[in-house]
Amino acid sequence: MTAVPDLAAAERRVRESFARQAFMATVGAQVTAVRAGEVEIDLPFAPGNTQQHGFVHGGLVASIADSACGYAALTLMPADAAVLSVEFKINFLSPAKGERLRAIGRVVRAGRKLFVCAGDVLARQGGVEKPVALVTATMIVAETTSGLRD
Amino acid sequence: MTAVPDLAAAERRVRESFARQAFMATVGAQVTAVRAGEVEIDLPFAPGNTQQHGFVHGGLVASIADSACGYAALTLMPADAAVLSVEFKINFLSPAKGERLRAIGRVVRAGRKLFVCAGDVLARQGGVEKPVALVTATMIVAETTSGLRD
Amino acid sequence: MTAVPDLAAAERRVRESFARQAFMATVGAQVTAVRAGEVEIDLPFAPGNTQQHGFVHGGLVASIADSACGYAALTLMPADAAVLSVEFKINFLSPAKGERLRAIGRVVRAGRKLFVCAGDVLARQGGVEKPVALVTATMIVAETTSGLRD
Amino acid sequence: MTAVPDLAAAERRVRESFARQAFMATVGAQVTAVRAGEVEIDLPFAPGNTQQHGFVHGGLVASIADSACGYAALTLMPADAAVLSVEFKINFLSPAKGERLRAIGRVVRAGRKLFVCAGDVLARQGGVEKPVALVTATMIVAETTSGLRD
Repeated sequence: MTAVPDLAAAERRVRESFARQAFMATVGAQVTAVRAGEVEIDLPFAPGNTQQHGFVHGGLVASIADSACGYAALTLMPADAAVLSVEFKINFLSPAKGERLRAIGRVVRAGRKLFVCAGDVLARQGGVEKPVALVTATMIVAETTSGLRD
Repeated sequence: MTAVPDLAAAERRVRESFARQAFMATVGAQVTAVRAGEVEIDLPFAPGNTQQHGFVHGGLVASIADSACGYAALTLMPADAAVLSVEFKINFLSPAKGERLRAIGRVVRAGRKLFVCAGDVLARQGGVEKPVALVTATMIVAETTSGLRD
Repeated sequence: MTAVPDLAAAERRVRESFARQAFMATVGAQVTAVRAGEVEIDLPFAPGNTQQHGFVHGGLVASIADSACGYAALTLMPADAAVLSVEFKINFLSPAKGERLRAIGRVVRAGRKLFVCAGDVLARQGGVEKPVALVTATMIVAETTSGLRD
Repeated sequence: MTAVPDLAAAERRVRESFARQAFMATVGAQVTAVRAGEVEIDLPFAPGNTQQHGFVHGGLVASIADSACGYAALTLMPADAAVLSVEFKINFLSPAKGERLRAIGRVVRAGRKLFVCAGDVLARQGGVEKPVALVTATMIVAETTSGLRD
């Protein structure tokens, strides 16, 4: 029997783990929504986040999508699990410019060991959002022998 | 007729463009080698670069590979071109821990418009290097109408 | 000025080009729907289409998704264009078994030169459909100098 | 203690499993080499294998690379295991034309559960080989509860 997921506990867990991702603090990213199987991360445009043309660096666009997908998976993982990225792919749709970026990660398939996730990154400028990138990712429940916890 | 590539000019171009990638400075990354169709980027382990388990964040591992692949392509692009990432995929091979990471980006196929690149990221610890990630990427010569230059 | 797309012409074009994909006939695939920016392809389960465990071969699942994505892009391309695949990635969600597979390819971003597409493959069994795979793909308008036409 | 792999047994196992991939017979593909962690598959050019411009269909190029990667992983898996594809990505380097295609799949990282593989597909024409595609893939050791065997 599968327990009804405790969303409040899942949100606490995601926020506590995210708070330990020092890299997300370095770039100013924040978790803005946690739902069962779905997490959103917000990144303000900042001069220190750019590539050579002044857009947000593609790797950083990928980073917030990777975190959003990983934490979306974590909301559905057992309490003693930790989440690790196996792989992801990103297709860029338009340059990442604007006031802020929003990454939404969603679980597409939840397995016992592997989770397949999909993510979107949008750029907000003057109240309008525009798609910036499309991501697919595989997340894994870390081996309990790894000693990792989330 | 294709001119013999001027490697000194290509290296200058890569280093000048990289110097404008503020995000690379934010994380402490540096270009350590520029060859025709191949670029290396070095990232020191720093507390601000980590994910929740203390490894370098997977998105940042991808970021230095993306930059290395993009600049590898730029070494073979016409003088009035700018490089943009179309897509990339990363497979993680082992947790990114150690003293520093080294990303090597290489051009696998140079077209007029599109470049296919492959990248490796290695982690160095105590004089030993270990594979951390495998990347494939597509880079595009930006439209001249974009006004972008590298 | 962009002409309003002529959907009847787009459908004819897709069906004529698809009819020249001998490989699709080899495996028994058919185009079942053509909309602006979206194409569906149907594949019956056939003993000659399987991998070693009796499921439809993953490469064939990818093949119908690749064709669906490519033809979705073609519906939005200029009349003198031809479509070629630049890259695609597929994540498998469950074994491809059942009576038939349905691949849906959709254009996510239509550029002048590049199209980003997303695809889903579903397996139908006893009136129920189940997700089998998730695809993202890049399609390119072939150089007019290539002599290719669709 | 890891036993020295029995290459003759691994080759027999790969060839027997491959013989059950009816789809590979449909397209005329054959295993031409089995080494520890590396497998080659050969595909003759055949009219029934083409896309609309007369090249080998991109999905079929991907199919032989997927099989080569999967069987490369199988050479290193325990005797009671079965191999399944988790995901793969393919970048196309040039149109697949010529007399035959050769796919080489290699294990890049062998884990207990997951294998990361890389593949190349080459086209042979008049004694010359040309790169056609670049693949990265994740393979999984199927759950023993799945009842699958290779």
